[in-house]
Amino acid sequence: MAEQKLYDGEFMERSKRIPGTPVFIGRRRMEDVRISYIRYNPDLYEEKEASSPEECLELTGKGDVVWLNVTGIHDAELIGKLGDIFGLHSLTVEDVVNTMQRPKFEDFDSYLFMILKMVEYLPGLLGMETEQVSVILGGDFVITFQEKPGDVFDQVRERIRNGRGRIRNAGADFLAYSLIDAVVDSYFLVLESLGDRLDDLEDRIMPDPEPDVISEIHSMKRAVLFMRRTVWPLREEISSLEKSGSELVANETSVFLRNLYDHTVQVMDTIETYRDVVSGMQDVYYSCISTRMNEVMKVLTVIATIFIPLTFITGVYGMNFRNMPELFWEPGYFVALGVMLLIALSMLLFFKKKKWI
Amino acid sequence: MAEQKLYDGEFMERSKRIPGTPVFIGRRRMEDVRISYIRYNPDLYEEKEASSPEECLELTGKGDVVWLNVTGIHDAELIGKLGDIFGLHSLTVEDVVNTMQRPKFEDFDSYLFMILKMVEYLPGLLGMETEQVSVILGGDFVITFQEKPGDVFDQVRERIRNGRGRIRNAGADFLAYSLIDAVVDSYFLVLESLGDRLDDLEDRIMPDPEPDVISEIHSMKRAVLFMRRTVWPLREEISSLEKSGSELVANETSVFLRNLYDHTVQVMDTIETYRDVVSGMQDVYYSCISTRMNEVMKVLTVIATIFIPLTFITGVYGMNFRNMPELFWEPGYFVALGVMLLIALSMLLFFKKKKWI
Amino acid sequence: MAEQKLYDGEFMERSKRIPGTPVFIGRRRMEDVRISYIRYNPDLYEEKEASSPEECLELTGKGDVVWLNVTGIHDAELIGKLGDIFGLHSLTVEDVVNTMQRPKFEDFDSYLFMILKMVEYLPGLLGMETEQVSVILGGDFVITFQEKPGDVFDQVRERIRNGRGRIRNAGADFLAYSLIDAVVDSYFLVLESLGDRLDDLEDRIMPDPEPDVISEIHSMKRAVLFMRRTVWPLREEISSLEKSGSELVANETSVFLRNLYDHTVQVMDTIETYRDVVSGMQDVYYSCISTRMNEVMKVLTVIATIFIPLTFITGVYGMNFRNMPELFWEPGYFVALGVMLLIALSMLLFFKKKKWI
Amino acid sequence: MAEQKLYDGEFMERSKRIPGTPVFIGRRRMEDVRISYIRYNPDLYEEKEASSPEECLELTGKGDVVWLNVTGIHDAELIGKLGDIFGLHSLTVEDVVNTMQRPKFEDFDSYLFMILKMVEYLPGLLGMETEQVSVILGGDFVITFQEKPGDVFDQVRERIRNGRGRIRNAGADFLAYSLIDAVVDSYFLVLESLGDRLDDLEDRIMPDPEPDVISEIHSMKRAVLFMRRTVWPLREEISSLEKSGSELVANETSVFLRNLYDHTVQVMDTIETYRDVVSGMQDVYYSCISTRMNEVMKVLTVIATIFIPLTFITGVYGMNFRNMPELFWEPGYFVALGVMLLIALSMLLFFKKKKWI
Amino acid sequence: MAEQKLYDGEFMERSKRIPGTPVFIGRRRMEDVRISYIRYNPDLYEEKEASSPEECLELTGKGDVVWLNVTGIHDAELIGKLGDIFGLHSLTVEDVVNTMQRPKFEDFDSYLFMILKMVEYLPGLLGMETEQVSVILGGDFVITFQEKPGDVFDQVRERIRNGRGRIRNAGADFLAYSLIDAVVDSYFLVLESLGDRLDDLEDRIMPDPEPDVISEIHSMKRAVLFMRRTVWPLREEISSLEKSGSELVANETSVFLRNLYDHTVQVMDTIETYRDVVSGMQDVYYSCISTRMNEVMKVLTVIATIFIPLTFITGVYGMNFRNMPELFWEPGYFVALGVMLLIALSMLLFFKKKKWI
Repeated sequence: MAEQKLYDGEFMERSKRIPGTPVFIGRRRMEDVRISYIRYNPDLYEEKEASSPEECLELTGKGDVVWLNVTGIHDAELIGKLGDIFGLHSLTVEDVVNTMQRPKFEDFDSYLFMILKMVEYLPGLLGMETEQVSVILGGDFVITFQEKPGDVFDQVRERIRNGRGRIRNAGADFLAYSLIDAVVDSYFLVLESLGDRLDDLEDRIMPDPEPDVISEIHSMKRAVLFMRRTVWPLREEISSLEKSGSELVANETSVFLRNLYDHTVQVMDTIETYRDVVSGMQDVYYSCISTRMNEVMKVLTVIATIFIPLTFITGVYGMNFRNMPELFWEPGYFVALGVMLLIALSMLLFFKKKKWI
Repeated sequence: MAEQKLYDGEFMERSKRIPGTPVFIGRRRMEDVRISYIRYNPDLYEEKEASSPEECLELTGKGDVVWLNVTGIHDAELIGKLGDIFGLHSLTVEDVVNTMQRPKFEDFDSYLFMILKMVEYLPGLLGMETEQVSVILGGDFVITFQEKPGDVFDQVRERIRNGRGRIRNAGADFLAYSLIDAVVDSYFLVLESLGDRLDDLEDRIMPDPEPDVISEIHSMKRAVLFMRRTVWPLREEISSLEKSGSELVANETSVFLRNLYDHTVQVMDTIETYRDVVSGMQDVYYSCISTRMNEVMKVLTVIATIFIPLTFITGVYGMNFRNMPELFWEPGYFVALGVMLLIALSMLLFFKKKKWI
Repeated sequence: MAEQKLYDGEFMERSKRIPGTPVFIGRRRMEDVRISYIRYNPDLYEEKEASSPEECLELTGKGDVVWLNVTGIHDAELIGKLGDIFGLHSLTVEDVVNTMQRPKFEDFDSYLFMILKMVEYLPGLLGMETEQVSVILGGDFVITFQEKPGDVFDQVRERIRNGRGRIRNAGADFLAYSLIDAVVDSYFLVLESLGDRLDDLEDRIMPDPEPDVISEIHSMKRAVLFMRRTVWPLREEISSLEKSGSELVANETSVFLRNLYDHTVQVMDTIETYRDVVSGMQDVYYSCISTRMNEVMKVLTVIATIFIPLTFITGVYGMNFRNMPELFWEPGYFVALGVMLLIALSMLLFFKKKKWI
Repeated sequence: MAEQKLYDGEFMERSKRIPGTPVFIGRRRMEDVRISYIRYNPDLYEEKEASSPEECLELTGKGDVVWLNVTGIHDAELIGKLGDIFGLHSLTVEDVVNTMQRPKFEDFDSYLFMILKMVEYLPGLLGMETEQVSVILGGDFVITFQEKPGDVFDQVRERIRNGRGRIRNAGADFLAYSLIDAVVDSYFLVLESLGDRLDDLEDRIMPDPEPDVISEIHSMKRAVLFMRRTVWPLREEISSLEKSGSELVANETSVFLRNLYDHTVQVMDTIETYRDVVSGMQDVYYSCISTRMNEVMKVLTVIATIFIPLTFITGVYGMNFRNMPELFWEPGYFVALGVMLLIALSMLLFFKKKKWI
Repeated sequence: MAEQKLYDGEFMERSKRIPGTPVFIGRRRMEDVRISYIRYNPDLYEEKEASSPEECLELTGKGDVVWLNVTGIHDAELIGKLGDIFGLHSLTVEDVVNTMQRPKFEDFDSYLFMILKMVEYLPGLLGMETEQVSVILGGDFVITFQEKPGDVFDQVRERIRNGRGRIRNAGADFLAYSLIDAVVDSYFLVLESLGDRLDDLEDRIMPDPEPDVISEIHSMKRAVLFMRRTVWPLREEISSLEKSGSELVANETSVFLRNLYDHTVQVMDTIETYRDVVSGMQDVYYSCISTRMNEVMKVLTVIATIFIPLTFITGVYGMNFRNMPELFWEPGYFVALGVMLLIALSMLLFFKKKKWI
C-alpha cells in the first residue's frame, strides 16, 4: 500500500510546525538544491545555473520573461530566502516545502500560486508515486519548484530554446500555462501504462481466471483510485485559475486555459472509464470463480448421488445374515448388477433433465 | 474491451504535442480528405466538391448559407489551412483533429464550436464505436468535420435539396441545429438496437439462465455505460449552446435548441432505464444461479443423509465377528431391511417437514 | 420487461422525423380522435362535442373559460390544424403527438405547455403502463390531449358541472391546476396498489420465503423504479410552472401550485420509502435463503461426520484377513457396537458445544 | 412494516378530495376534538378550555400572547370554522387535517404555517409511529394542532405557568420556537431508545450471533431510515423559517432558531451514525455467519477426506476374491491398520500445513 | 461501539432543558473547573491562574491580547457567570457546556464563537474519543473552554512565551487562528496512528488472513467513519469563519485561515484514502477467504469423486452372492486392483484438464 507508506512520519513533523515558518515535510529525493533560470524574449535566449538565491535579485523587471526552476525543496531556509527576494508570502513558502499539499490554486494579487502533482506509475509493487511541483506566476517571471531532477518540463525548455510554437512571443502567463499543460499531458502517459496493464489483465481473466489475478485487480483499482484523487482537485484548480480574472493572465491565454481544463476533464473521463473497467473485471472474475465452483459442486453431487445408493446395495448384499435368499439365487449377482446399472442410468437421466450435467 | 484498445498509442502521440499546433490523434479511417460544400438560399441550391481548401475562400459573405463538409481529418495540415481561411483559432483546429475529445461547446465570439460523437453499435465483440463530428457555426456558414464518409447528415442534405421543412428559409444556425439534431436522433437508433439486445437477453435468462449469458450481460452493461458517458456531456453542451446568448443563434432557433435539449434528456433517461434493466438482469441471473445451486445442494444432502445411516447398518451386519446373534436369527435379514426402510421413510418425512424437498 | 417493449419500433420512426413537423410516435390506442369542449363562467355551463377542429375557431375571447379536451393523438394532421387555430408552435404540436416525451414545462409567452404522464398499475406481467397527457394553458382556454378515453379528469368535469369548490369562479389557470392536481392525485391510487402488493409480498417472505417470491420482488423493484422515473421530472415541472412568473398564472393560483408541489414531493417520498422497503425485502429474502442453506449444510455435516468414522469401523471388521483376533473374541461385536455408540455420542456433544445443532 | 400499513386506505380518500376543501385523511385517534387556550403576558397567566370555536373570536389583539391548542383533527368542519376565525387559507386548513403531510414551512404573509412530526418508538413489532403537529404563528397568537392528547408540549406549558426562562417576556414567535424546540428535543429521546436497542443488539451479535438477530437488524435499519426520512425535511423547514425574513419573527428569536437548526443537524448526525452502526452490524453478522459456515465446511472436508481413503482400504480387504495373498499373510491385518494410521496422520499433517485445522 | 456509549443518558438530560439556560450535558472528566489566563503584547507576557470568574472583569480593553483558558466545563453556573462578564449570549453558554455539539461557527457581531472537536485514538477496544473545545474570539480576547487538562494548546502557549513566529505581534484573531490550527494539526497525529494501524493490518491480511482480522477491519472502518464525521463539519466551519467578513478578523489573518482550510481538506483527503484502503482490505479479506474455501471444496471433491467409485467396486466384490464368477478367477483380485488404479488415474487426468487441481 504505497500511499500510506508515503505518510510515514510526515504527519509527525507537521504537528510541530509554526504557521508561516517553512519546514520541509517529505522524503528528501536528491543531494543539493539546484537553481537554474532561463531568460528570454522574442530575440533573446539565455540559460544559466545560479549558485545562490541572491543571484536572482536583479533578473526581473527588464522586459524579459524569466523562468526560475528550483530542483530539490528540502532546504527550507534557502527556499525561504528565495521567497523573500520574489516577495512571496510566508505561507506560500511553507506550502512549497510541504510535499503533502493537495493540488490547489491561490491568488496573492502580486502573484499566482499553483501546486501540481506529477504522477509516475511504477508497475512493480509500489504502484503510483507522486512528485510535487509548485508554479508561481508573477508579472514577468515564473518560478517552478520540483522535488527531483528529470521531468516533463524538458519539452517546454526545448520549445523555448528553438522558438517553436508561440511561446517566445507570449508572456510569462503563457509559459506558466505551457508548464501546467506539460504536467497534464504527462498524465496521458500514465493512463497509457495503466491501460496497457488493464488490457493485459483482461487477457488473463478471459478464458479462465488465474487465482492471483484478483490481487492484481485490487492493486489496479487502488492505482486508479489514487490517480483519480490526484487529478480531481486539478480540475477545480485550473478552473479557478481561468476564472480568477487576475491581471497576470492575458485574455489570449485564457482560451488556452479553457482548453487545458477540457484536457483534465478528458483525463478524469478516462480514469472513470478505467474504474468501470476494473470493477467490471472484478465482477467477471467473481462470476467466473462462482461458475467454476458451481461446476465443481455439480460434479461432486452427480458422482456422489449416483454411487451412494449403489454402494448401499452392495452393502446390503455384503451383509452376513445366514438367511438371505437372494444370495443363493443363481442369477442373483447379475440381476443385482443390472439393477444398479438401471439406477445409475435413471439418475443420469434425471440430472440431464434438471440440466445439472 | 473495445474502449481501451481505442486509446492504444494515442496517449503517446498526444504527450508530444505543442499547444496550438494541430496534430492528428486517432485512427485513420479513410484514404483522402474530401471537402464538399452546399450553398443555398430560399431560391438557390448548389452542391459541389472542392479540390483544395483555397477554393472555399470566397464562398461566404454572399447572403447564402454555406455548409462545408470535410470528410477525413487525418491531414492536420490541410485542416489547418482551412482553419486559416475561416479564421478559426489554432486550438479549435487542434481539437478538430484530435479524435479523443469529449463532446463540448465553445464560444469564440466570431464562431461557435461544437464537438459531437456519433455512436455505432456493433453487436459483435467490439461493442460500441464512436466517430467524432465537429461543427463550426459562423455568421453564414457551417463547417462539419467527420472521420469517415456515410453518415446521418444525408437526411439533412436531402431536406435542403428538396426544401422540406423550414430549413431553406432559415439561417446557418438552423442548419447547425438540424445537424446536431440528426446526430441526437441517431442515438435513438442505437438505443433501439440495445433495447432489442436486452429483450433477447431477457428471454435467455428467464426460464433458466444459460451459463454464457452472464458475460453478455457484462458486455451489455459496458455498452450502456459507454453510451452514457458519450451522451452525458452532450446535455451540458446543448444547454450551453442554448444559453450562450450568442448573436449567431437567432431567437427562433433557441426554441428548437430547447427542444433538442429535451431529446438528449430523453436519451439519457432511456439509458438510465437500460442501466436499471441490465443491473436487474444481473440480479435475476445471480439469484437464479444461487437458487439452482441450493437445489443441487439439497438433493445432495437428502440423498447423502438418507443413505449414509443405511449404509452404516449394512456395514454393521457385514462385519465378520464370530459372535453376532442377529445374523443367525431366521428373519434377521428381513427385519434389517424393514428397519432401513423405516429410517429412510422417517428421514424423508423429516425433510418434507423442513420443506427441503 | 414492459418498459422496453414500449419502445419497440418507436425509436425507428423518430429518427426519420423533420424537426417541427408533427409525426405521431407511439401505440395507437383508440379508433378516432374525439374533440370535446366545456365552456363555463360563474353563471354558464356548456358541454359539447366538436366534429372538426374548425368548430373551435370562435370559442375563445368571449370572457368564458374554455376547456378543449382531445382524446386520441394519433392523427398528427388533425392535431396540427388545431395547433394552427390556437397559435401553437410547431414544436409543441410535435411534442403532443410524440408519446415518448418526458414530463416537462415550457413557457411560450402566449401559452404554457405541460406534458404529464398518467400511470396505471397492471398487477399482471406487464407492470406499469403510462399515458401521456398534454396540457396547454392560454389566456382563457385550456387544451388537454390524452391518448385514450376514460380518465381522472372526470372528477374535475363533475366539479365544474356542479360548481363545487372555487373552480367556476376562477380562471383558466385554476382549471389547469385542477387538471394537473387530478393527475398527481391519481398517483396516490397507484401507490396504494403498490403498497398493497408490498404488504402481500411481505407476508409471503416472512415465515419462510417461497422460491418464486424473489422474481416478484424484482418486478416490484422495477415497478417502483419506473414510477420514480415518471414522477421525478414532474417535481421540477411544477416547480418551474410555479416560478415561471408567467402572466397567465394568477397570484392566487400560485399558492395552490405550491401546495401541488408539496404533493409531488409526498409522492416521491412514498416512492423512496417503497424503494427502501423493496430493497429491505431483498435483503431479508437473501438472508433467509442463506440461513436455510446453512442449516442444510450443517445437517449434512453432522450426519456425515458422525457416520463416516462409524462406517469405517464396520469396514475394518468387515475385512477378510485370516488373522484378526478381535473377530474371535466373544464379546467383540458388542464392544464394537459400544465403541461406535460412544464415538457417535461424543461427536454429538462436540457439535452441541460448537452450537452447530 | 409499520410505515405502509399507515397508508392503508388514506391514498384512496385523498384521491377524491377537492383542492381547498378540507377532508380529514388519517386514523382517528381520540373521541372529541378539544380546544384549549393559554393567554399570557409578563404579568398575566390564564388557561381555559373552549367549548366552541366561536369562543376564540375575541382572544387576539389585546396585547397578550395567545396559544390555542387543538387536540384531535378528525373534525374537518370544526377545524374549517377555526380557520375562518383566524383568517387561515383554505389550503392551510386542508393541510392541517391531512396527516400524510411532510414537515414543511409556508409563509402566508399574515401568518406562518409549519407542519412537524412527533415520533414515538414502539419497541415491539410496529416500529415507529408518528403524530402530525401543525403550528401556526400569527402576530400575537400561536395555534397548534395535534392528533391526540398527552405530549411534549407539557413542559412548555409548565414553563409559561411558572414564568421560567424568557418565555413570558417574549412574543408569540418565541412561543412558536419553544414548541418546535420541544418537538426536536423529543427526537433525542427516541434516539436514546434506538441507541439502547443498538447496544443491546451489539451484545447479541458479538461473541456468536443468534440466528434471529438478523431480522432485528433489518427492522432496526428500517426504524433508522424512517427516522431519517421524518427528520430530514425538518432541517430545511427550520432553515426556511429562520431565513424567511418574516416580520412575525423578531431578530432575537432568529438566534434561537439558528440554534434549533444546529440541533436538528445534530439529530441528523446521530441518525447517520446509527445508520453506519446498523450497516456495520449487518457486515459483522454476515462475516460471522460465513466464518462459521467455513468452519463447518472445513470439519466436513477434513473428516471426509481422512476417512474416505481408509474406508476404501477396508473395502479392498473386504472383497471376497479367492486369491488375495495379503489376507492369508499372518501380520496382514496389523500392517493394514498401520498403513491406515499412517495415511490418516499424513493427511492431518497436510491439513495442518494448509492451515485448514 | 464507543460512539453510542458516549450518548448514554445524555439525550435524556437534554430533553429537560430550557432553551437559553445552560445545563451541562456530558461526562465529567475532572475535579474542579480551572480558569487561567495569559496576557501579552509585543513587549509584555503574563500568565496567571484566576480563583474566580470575577477576577477576569478588568482584563480586557487595555491594549493587550488576553487568552482566557477554562479547563473543565461541568460547572454550568460558573461558566454562566463568565459568560455574563464577557457579554456572551445565553445560547453560547448553553452550547459551551453541552459536549454533544457538532463543530460549528457562529457570528454574534461582538464576538465569534467556534466549537471544535479534539480527537484521541485509543488503539484498544474503545476506539476514538473526542473532547469538545470552544473558542470565543472578541476584540482583544480569546476564551477557550476544554473538558480536561493537558492538550495541544501547550505549543501555542510556548510560542507566545518565547515570542516565536508572528504571534506576539499579531492580534487576538491570530491567536484564535493559531489555536484552531493546533487542533487541526493534532488530527494529523491521529491519522498517523490510524495509518500505522492500517499498515499493521495489511501485513496480517496479505499472505494468509488471520480469522480475527475481519473484526479489526470493521473496527478500523468505524474509526475512520467516526473521524470523517468529526472533521467534515470543520471544513465548513473554517470556510464560514474565513468568509464571515467579520471586523474581528484582520485581512492578514484571512490568508492564514485559507491555508488552514486547505489543511482540513488535506485531512479529509487522507481520511478518504483510508476509507478506500479499509474497504479495499475488506475486499481482499473476503476474496482470500473465498479462494481458500474454494480450495477446500476442490480437495473434498477430488478425493470424494476419486474414491467413491472405487469404494463402490470394492463393495461389489464384497457381496456374498454364491455365484460370482470373478471371485473364483485366479488373477481376479489383481485385475480389480488394476482397474481401480486406472479409474483413479483417469479421474486425476480429468481434474487436471479441468484445472481443478
